Amino acid sequence: MKQYSNRLNKLGTETAFKVSESASEFIKSGKVIYPYHLGDLNIPTPENIIEAAKKALHEGKTGYVSPSGIPRLRKIISEVVGFERQIIYEPKNVVIQPGGKPVIAKFIQAIMNPGDGVLYPNPGYPIYESQIEFNGGIPLPYEFIPTSDGFMLDREKLESMIDNRTRILIYNNFQNPTGCESDIEEMEWLSEIANKYNLWVLSDEAYFNIRYSGKSKSIASFPGMKERTVILYTFSKTFSMTGWRLGAAIGPSSLMKIFEKLSVNDESCTNHFVQCAGIEALEGPQKYQKFITDKLKNRRNLLSEMLNAIHGVKVIVPDTTFYLYPDITELYHCVDARSYEDFRTIILQKTGVSFCTREHFGKPNKIETRKYIRLAYSGISIKDISLSMNVLKDFFSKSLSSSMV
Amino acid sequence: MKQYSNRLNKLGTETAFKVSESASEFIKSGKVIYPYHLGDLNIPTPENIIEAAKKALHEGKTGYVSPSGIPRLRKIISEVVGFERQIIYEPKNVVIQPGGKPVIAKFIQAIMNPGDGVLYPNPGYPIYESQIEFNGGIPLPYEFIPTSDGFMLDREKLESMIDNRTRILIYNNFQNPTGCESDIEEMEWLSEIANKYNLWVLSDEAYFNIRYSGKSKSIASFPGMKERTVILYTFSKTFSMTGWRLGAAIGPSSLMKIFEKLSVNDESCTNHFVQCAGIEALEGPQKYQKFITDKLKNRRNLLSEMLNAIHGVKVIVPDTTFYLYPDITELYHCVDARSYEDFRTIILQKTGVSFCTREHFGKPNKIETRKYIRLAYSGISIKDISLSMNVLKDFFSKSLSSSMV
Repeated sequence: MKQYSNRLNKLGTETAFKVSESASEFIKSGKVIYPYHLGDLNIPTPENIIEAAKKALHEGKTGYVSPSGIPRLRKIISEVVGFERQIIYEPKNVVIQPGGKPVIAKFIQAIMNPGDGVLYPNPGYPIYESQIEFNGGIPLPYEFIPTSDGFMLDREKLESMIDNRTRILIYNNFQNPTGCESDIEEMEWLSEIANKYNLWVLSDEAYFNIRYSGKSKSIASFPGMKERTVILYTFSKTFSMTGWRLGAAIGPSSLMKIFEKLSVNDESCTNHFVQCAGIEALEGPQKYQKFITDKLKNRRNLLSEMLNAIHGVKVIVPDTTFYLYPDITELYHCVDARSYEDFRTIILQKTGVSFCTREHFGKPNKIETRKYIRLAYSGISIKDISLSMNVLKDFFSKSLSSSMV
Repeated sequence: MKQYSNRLNKLGTETAFKVSESASEFIKSGKVIYPYHLGDLNIPTPENIIEAAKKALHEGKTGYVSPSGIPRLRKIISEVVGFERQIIYEPKNVVIQPGGKPVIAKFIQAIMNPGDGVLYPNPGYPIYESQIEFNGGIPLPYEFIPTSDGFMLDREKLESMIDNRTRILIYNNFQNPTGCESDIEEMEWLSEIANKYNLWVLSDEAYFNIRYSGKSKSIASFPGMKERTVILYTFSKTFSMTGWRLGAAIGPSSLMKIFEKLSVNDESCTNHFVQCAGIEALEGPQKYQKFITDKLKNRRNLLSEMLNAIHGVKVIVPDTTFYLYPDITELYHCVDARSYEDFRTIILQKTGVSFCTREHFGKPNKIETRKYIRLAYSGISIKDISLSMNVLKDFFSKSLSSSMV
């Protein structure tokens, strides 16, 4: 048989799914696992949203709709997203998508020519790099420097990568995997860079509304940015709707016409009654959204406290996302791990604690000496957080004392 | 602002959506339209499928699932599709997709290198050509020759287009827009061609189950074909689920692993509770499916009868799809149309009858002298078929007599 296409060699994946598989294998062998590996929520979708979907089903909202989405959903998204970010958007700035993720490929296909450079975060969500390379772009991973309360952009390095073929900056404030966010000054700097080098910006704001204190800000609201930024918006995390597959691209209307055309080509439209449920999510009572973030906040507090109580672990406590990104360098050496994957496997087998490592979010650079893992607390109960951290603590104190013998 | 990507110049679209817009404008001006332009169904989704979606919503089937789909749906699709086509498929041969359409882009991206040739039908579904060109392939449109009871492949021409860069044959038996199908001998010939030239085949079987007599056959069931064919499967037409966005790719398991990886990159997964409803569609009572095809059959019979009763119209009555593709050459000349678009607009404005023309399905070649339009009877009632055809008949008899004056 003939071969597949050459470009498949450049297609990456979300290796977190492999961690899921390895966790499932572990469960099959009768063991208990503590799932910190996937960014899915074990909190049900709010009842009013479910009822809205059922109502729409009964009303026969089961046929094709416009590839750009139903007008009322585009309108309410433009209003809510605009209000939260202090930007004026109109319905024509919004194209509904079957999830947030489809925005990534469409953005790259709409803007980037083969050979163009694309800046993206490392560590960062692995699909950026995969789509850049699959579509023939030049990946330009920018890095972060640890600080006392999080991470900051390595500005000098970022700017040094830009040349006249650099066209896109992918920015994921409220970041997966670190959970960190830029301060205002960093966002200002970044928006100046985008303006100075005339870059298009994809602002992945999947976690914009998952926050426990403070207020989220969008890079699109900075001077000169609205016209060069596409916001990746998703209902997945905010409304606990990951499996519904509902999101949107929000950006300049001329570019949104192109997104619409790409949608015609790629998927026709997004599910009709799911869009009706999306209207209810934004127009209906918001109390349940607070219930979700309150629940997550309790988990964050307990998990970070218990992590920091483990000798050799240091984690900052971010105000956003549902990820913690602890520095586990000492534990790594303490168990004599030969690699991140080795470390992950040892801990899974010895303690049942399942997580992704720094390597699931891009290749560490050579000078990166500290070791990190990512713990998602979106899919684990308070009780299991407590149990698992005790198991982990015990394991490490034993390892530590035996390594000292 | 910087420009968009160059490849957008090669992106086509489904111009039927533009016809919809033009029909909507017409309605806004207070006029009656008879909608024959869109392949959507005005028949509700069967109640048992809706109930299954509601049940799944209540059971919390709202989180992420595997990018390849939920196991039970993959299993039942492999069984049903295999049984109907007399091919043995296993769950690993099935990857669930958010509709049938996403199979087209994924297939092309997985197989085709830029510069490779792709055979596809003209007239045919316009997204084939668009995705071939957008992804850098060489479009090789193959044509049909009118016969007394339909259309047959122009075999000589098709084979003459094949060279050593030709890698893919896209085949849409039960064809949009003609409604026609190959006889066994034509399918045999085509499968021999695919084997002889070592082509991959995308078999778009969206209308496989929309049939009024006879039995559908898949090219995948011919010798040597299973290993080189991907079936585009969709719930849209068979179960009146167009707006649900549920379909699948069915093909060799190694290629399906690649489809899964593309799904990870493009959309994460297909809606969870919609997949549960898909299980009910295939496992539950099938009587409603017969209700749908019975309804469509009545429309087809009336529409074809009334079309053939119009002087200057000739239409064959296909056993499949919900399209009629009448030869309207004489009417075209009778109203002095300067172009297909001119003809479409005249008829819409004079009679309210809204349809796509041959040009919405690819460029007619220079020697194509006969003129065709496509009437979709999926979204129009028996009563409106009757009314509209009387209006059309009156209009043409007047035009005819005045043109003879």
